[in-house]
Amino acid sequence: MTDKLHLPEDRYFDPDPKQKEIALHLYRQVANKPLVCPHGHVDPRMFADPDYQFGSPADLLLIPDHYIFRMLYSQGIALESLGVPRNDGGEVENDHRKIWQTFADNFFLFRGTPTGMWLAHELSDVFGVTEKLNSANAQKIYDQIADCLTKPEFRPRQLFERFNIEILATTDAAADTLEYHKAIKASGWKGRIVPTFRPDGVVNIDRPDWRANIGELGKTCGYEISSYKKLIEALESRRAFFKTMGATATDHAALTPFTCVLTDTEADAIFQRALAGTATEDDATRFTGHLIVQNARMSTEDGLVMQFHPGSFRNHNAVVFEKFGYDKGCDIPVSSDFTRNLKSLLDLYGSDARLRMILFTLDETTYSRELAPLAGHYPALRLGPPWWFHDSLNGMRRFRDLAMETAGLYNTAGFNDDTRAFPSIPARHDLARRVDSNWIAGLVVRGIIDLDDADEMIHDAAYRLAKRAYKFD
Amino acid sequence: MTDKLHLPEDRYFDPDPKQKEIALHLYRQVANKPLVCPHGHVDPRMFADPDYQFGSPADLLLIPDHYIFRMLYSQGIALESLGVPRNDGGEVENDHRKIWQTFADNFFLFRGTPTGMWLAHELSDVFGVTEKLNSANAQKIYDQIADCLTKPEFRPRQLFERFNIEILATTDAAADTLEYHKAIKASGWKGRIVPTFRPDGVVNIDRPDWRANIGELGKTCGYEISSYKKLIEALESRRAFFKTMGATATDHAALTPFTCVLTDTEADAIFQRALAGTATEDDATRFTGHLIVQNARMSTEDGLVMQFHPGSFRNHNAVVFEKFGYDKGCDIPVSSDFTRNLKSLLDLYGSDARLRMILFTLDETTYSRELAPLAGHYPALRLGPPWWFHDSLNGMRRFRDLAMETAGLYNTAGFNDDTRAFPSIPARHDLARRVDSNWIAGLVVRGIIDLDDADEMIHDAAYRLAKRAYKFD
Amino acid sequence: MTDKLHLPEDRYFDPDPKQKEIALHLYRQVANKPLVCPHGHVDPRMFADPDYQFGSPADLLLIPDHYIFRMLYSQGIALESLGVPRNDGGEVENDHRKIWQTFADNFFLFRGTPTGMWLAHELSDVFGVTEKLNSANAQKIYDQIADCLTKPEFRPRQLFERFNIEILATTDAAADTLEYHKAIKASGWKGRIVPTFRPDGVVNIDRPDWRANIGELGKTCGYEISSYKKLIEALESRRAFFKTMGATATDHAALTPFTCVLTDTEADAIFQRALAGTATEDDATRFTGHLIVQNARMSTEDGLVMQFHPGSFRNHNAVVFEKFGYDKGCDIPVSSDFTRNLKSLLDLYGSDARLRMILFTLDETTYSRELAPLAGHYPALRLGPPWWFHDSLNGMRRFRDLAMETAGLYNTAGFNDDTRAFPSIPARHDLARRVDSNWIAGLVVRGIIDLDDADEMIHDAAYRLAKRAYKFD
Repeated sequence: MTDKLHLPEDRYFDPDPKQKEIALHLYRQVANKPLVCPHGHVDPRMFADPDYQFGSPADLLLIPDHYIFRMLYSQGIALESLGVPRNDGGEVENDHRKIWQTFADNFFLFRGTPTGMWLAHELSDVFGVTEKLNSANAQKIYDQIADCLTKPEFRPRQLFERFNIEILATTDAAADTLEYHKAIKASGWKGRIVPTFRPDGVVNIDRPDWRANIGELGKTCGYEISSYKKLIEALESRRAFFKTMGATATDHAALTPFTCVLTDTEADAIFQRALAGTATEDDATRFTGHLIVQNARMSTEDGLVMQFHPGSFRNHNAVVFEKFGYDKGCDIPVSSDFTRNLKSLLDLYGSDARLRMILFTLDETTYSRELAPLAGHYPALRLGPPWWFHDSLNGMRRFRDLAMETAGLYNTAGFNDDTRAFPSIPARHDLARRVDSNWIAGLVVRGIIDLDDADEMIHDAAYRLAKRAYKFD
Repeated sequence: MTDKLHLPEDRYFDPDPKQKEIALHLYRQVANKPLVCPHGHVDPRMFADPDYQFGSPADLLLIPDHYIFRMLYSQGIALESLGVPRNDGGEVENDHRKIWQTFADNFFLFRGTPTGMWLAHELSDVFGVTEKLNSANAQKIYDQIADCLTKPEFRPRQLFERFNIEILATTDAAADTLEYHKAIKASGWKGRIVPTFRPDGVVNIDRPDWRANIGELGKTCGYEISSYKKLIEALESRRAFFKTMGATATDHAALTPFTCVLTDTEADAIFQRALAGTATEDDATRFTGHLIVQNARMSTEDGLVMQFHPGSFRNHNAVVFEKFGYDKGCDIPVSSDFTRNLKSLLDLYGSDARLRMILFTLDETTYSRELAPLAGHYPALRLGPPWWFHDSLNGMRRFRDLAMETAGLYNTAGFNDDTRAFPSIPARHDLARRVDSNWIAGLVVRGIIDLDDADEMIHDAAYRLAKRAYKFD
Repeated sequence: MTDKLHLPEDRYFDPDPKQKEIALHLYRQVANKPLVCPHGHVDPRMFADPDYQFGSPADLLLIPDHYIFRMLYSQGIALESLGVPRNDGGEVENDHRKIWQTFADNFFLFRGTPTGMWLAHELSDVFGVTEKLNSANAQKIYDQIADCLTKPEFRPRQLFERFNIEILATTDAAADTLEYHKAIKASGWKGRIVPTFRPDGVVNIDRPDWRANIGELGKTCGYEISSYKKLIEALESRRAFFKTMGATATDHAALTPFTCVLTDTEADAIFQRALAGTATEDDATRFTGHLIVQNARMSTEDGLVMQFHPGSFRNHNAVVFEKFGYDKGCDIPVSSDFTRNLKSLLDLYGSDARLRMILFTLDETTYSRELAPLAGHYPALRLGPPWWFHDSLNGMRRFRDLAMETAGLYNTAGFNDDTRAFPSIPARHDLARRVDSNWIAGLVVRGIIDLDDADEMIHDAAYRLAKRAYKFD
């Protein structure tokens, strides 16, 4: 049994020697370009404290990563045994070496998965691991990572610099006072970390935590959010504050891409029912749909780029949600209709050059059927990269295959890593750059474009488009 | 920077040397076969007048082509600046050199798109352009094309012959008296140009121009279309007239593939409501659904091939539609359900060998899920080629991948170019023939078929199936 | 014209020499592994009688195979002329040589189809045919097969052994007393043939034959199924009986994946309406949805693996159904929503390790959007192989492409052939093993996995996973 970690230089390229050669030529041009990270979920706290430490290898790599524990869970391994904290504070495994061993024993489950590819890269390039993880070497590799994590060069700021991250956007609730972002600024450290305004918690009235979030928002604003009008005021003022803190974008989730326009009276009536706890499911759909349009309107005024990613049925597993809460690997996609649902918004702002709206989907059928035709027409629209389950070798390939002929490369927003797993960021960008190099090389060997075009396109895909789309220029 | 137009002989084939060799072997057999064009939107007027001239390069190539200007529009370039005429006759750019320059400055947007591929072929083969279009050479290339367009050999009839078009079908409204088709026949010119009967304008009662169209139809027929019964009579007599003019097919669009059977009384009640301006959305859906079935019935009687392509949400952008009207690149697809929606029609005529119905879709998810199983069973059904956004290298490849294993090649209707851009016709057929050569070569190198079968299949795909499906034999 | 049957050793692999070499290396490891057949429709009767004979070549290969006759029917060849028996016992072609000739004359229709690939393998490996079937050699090949079929080594039991089938599951109605399975056991023959419990006939109250099936079930049970409670009792006792006969699994079909929980009172009210012939469509949907949940509950108790394959609109062609009945190639897929529809069931049993539920779909859009995320999270779920129209070279490739990155190989249930065509079983497994070898080789040449992982994966895909998923270990 070979136990060498398998990371050939030309990995992830198609096997044809000619295509591989061109892909490598393109990849090498961008492999070391700075990383632009306009959308993600890294905790800004880790950069506020120059001495922040990541904890154990399990703390860093396993316990917070739902990509990993949902796969183990799917094979019957209890979340408790993986150290995933319970809502009720009940006991879970706290022997991190044991958690790591369970992970290593089941590492074969990740064969052919993006998590497997990211981990191989991460273990090798960040921690210097040279062997493929297995039951036998699990504790040795644990030691090696744990040893790294004690060293100063494995503090978040040092890794940020080593990773060559040019800019990193976090995702922050509407009520967030951005204390960590302030501390980072105040510290004089030169790493560019910016917030992103995500108001879902106060907009989606069907969330269990909506009233709590509205309370928080009132506290931050200094007045009670007692009406729809107050909510709009609060959103506008928070957006302005985020902008002063460096934000260039907002971020919005919803079950469907539904948009609509309510009168202020209608909107307030729903808001009051929500406060009273009597809002219906239809109220929630329409209120969210209206607020999406309102946020688009605000974007035409303040210039914040608007990200919209509908289509995830959150917390699908009632058993897991009750025991463990949000973000536990049981958000499951549903089909989406963008064509009909976005029409209300697009009739108002789709042709308005002041709006930039970046769309994401978990329903790949919309790539060629709806999203590419929409982005290939409306000036306000850009396509975000393949999202979540589709941020993978095949997922990115399918996006290029299905969307580029109609949308064109230049109606896309480049890559983003969308991750909470900070040390996986270089691996994710590297995979994307390889997939794009291979895609573009495929165009060259098929005589679709020439090498000059290819050179431009790889720089656009790997670096420039993300900067431009998110107004980081 | 290379500025040579990039058109290698083996373009669009997969890179594997063996597959490329077989693809080239197949392609060469059909590269110069006559072009069969059973479905398109070329204006017959240009063939009625032997001295018809195309105007400027922008008149010919840019201003009428929504594939091109919608891409420029998506990047914030105003349609006015591209010379697209406004509904209100308001001012738009009329310096065609300036329009051409804008296009050339943004030609990079078409990298990897079918429009980019067609244009490269068209500029090279039709106009002898040898450089890749860019900002610097824009005016020189404009001159070259403009120069060509003054010459007799660039008249439509001469190009028709040079393009080796065997037959070209136009698309014509129910009320059309086919004056240009008559003039072509009367002129003694041997080019075979036939009309196609498209009654959408008088069938889809929710169109803004429906009453005007009904008025036109009455004028053509010589009696007022005052009832459902009169409409049916008019349709039947117009179909008969189109047939005398050489038509072999009809063409039908709808938002969904819904079909149903109404009683004459129900149908007339809806028709009267439509005349009175009180028809509902549901009325429109049911009336269209019923008329689709009626047209299928007529096809069993008169033998006209019935084309049906549902799934486009027309004029999605209210701002653009109001200002510029129909066909401005803002028709956006929606998902389609053929299985349930076609059942009413298929129960009546799906097993009737007298009906030939060719189905098109913009929802690729139906290729393998619905269309291939339907066409692989019902004798009346054939599958049209990948339509509109999917008439592209990848789009055609996906159709072969998704539909052929279940439907088989012989339940398809070959290729059609569906274009209004007359000089792009050879480029479109050439792309399709290359993609099919590559597909079939892929079957050979995988040992799925032998070379004898491959030789038959490429002739079927490139030429025979279209002739047979549209009864041109 | 070459008339040699075309079956190169390296068929169905991608053309890249490196990938082909690895694919062949992997394929050779599993090419001769025993066949595990956990889901299919072979008639157990043929193994109960040691002297069972298959009849003519048309009896064996054409008349019962709707994959074949639906393709011929789609081209206008009457089912009567193919010997397909009519419901009313009316006359159909009974000259089997003539039927065979029609098939041979139209064999080109199967170019590039899985049926074409299976038949080539079957004719060659089972019957020793060396020529490609065509009009000229049709009768000669008929003779050759007919000659084989007279020989003792072409009896079902002998072929079962020659095919190296380790286990074969049949599919059997709830009321079935499994006489043939008993006879097989009693005969002392060592072939392992097990039943599968399929209660659709007594669960789906909208079937035309539901009341007859309920009557049969009552007869088998010895009491009248006069209430919902009696139905549940009957199902539980029949499951127990099937288990004693070796069954490890149940099998369930429905138009949609809808699941719900009714009270006993609600369920009985629907049952009574069904008996009275007054049940509505909505009743049928809810009753089936509730019974799916009930069967899941029973599986948690008796351990039978639960297979669920929704999404086929059965008997879509009213004309063919009336004349020829069930299973005549006119079942057409519809789109499916698993995420919302399965939630009721999954909230109850999805996290329950005692349930193993294997999901199949005819809507490939759910592979990456719903099924892989569901199977990649819920411990109870596994994905079945590509089903029916998708059990093909491209269909299997798409499944690997779309589902594996999120679900992982280890949340799948391996291959099954799902066939009534007994002699096609080796060809179907061989095709699957080739496609999987090629898929895994593709991962190796892209540097995604190493050869050690590849060797494990091909054994899992080709043999181990099916055994494990269906609890045959």
